[in-house]
Amino acid sequence: MFIAMNHFLVKAGYESAFEEIWRSRDSKLHEFEGFVSFEMLKAHEDEDGFILYASHAVWTTREAFEGWTKSDQFKASHRRPKPKVEYKGPPRFVGFETLEDLSIPKE
Amino acid sequence: MFIAMNHFLVKAGYESAFEEIWRSRDSKLHEFEGFVSFEMLKAHEDEDGFILYASHAVWTTREAFEGWTKSDQFKASHRRPKPKVEYKGPPRFVGFETLEDLSIPKE
Repeated sequence: MFIAMNHFLVKAGYESAFEEIWRSRDSKLHEFEGFVSFEMLKAHEDEDGFILYASHAVWTTREAFEGWTKSDQFKASHRRPKPKVEYKGPPRFVGFETLEDLSIPKE
Repeated sequence: MFIAMNHFLVKAGYESAFEEIWRSRDSKLHEFEGFVSFEMLKAHEDEDGFILYASHAVWTTREAFEGWTKSDQFKASHRRPKPKVEYKGPPRFVGFETLEDLSIPKE
């Protein structure tokens, strides 16, 4: 499995605007081969007053994820107008491969 | 849902020793109420030659996760001797809450 995370530091006060960007999008993710699930995660506020969010998309393979990033649907979703949000900086991407032999599933 | 991640920066050459720590442990995680799944994730090497790993544990709630951190099993698992691994620094913990209304499940 492959987990694609993007970390966003959102200025306190802009949480609703940020969440609205994700709530209002017309996602076709579930139509893509290899897509498993998407979650938006919210964590702590940092010492400068920015809240850490992370998009968390699970794909069967890195190749499936990369296929989606090259799709017209991906390009369209990154083009449309968005509510104004103040960020600390650009999103920080991390792509993770699962080490299958170290997994512990639910019993 | 609650996702507990710990980020580890492991010096190149110590990957096997690090993975062995996790492979050889006697985990009782699956016996805990609220445990969903555990994965060890591996990402890129940073510019200083350290490889980013992240433990990725899913729990039904933050409270379930915190219950486990107070258990004897947690304390025991953090006490036993481990192979030598060089890290860039201490593990960096992030606890994430899922925003359920922004989730996209597999169709």
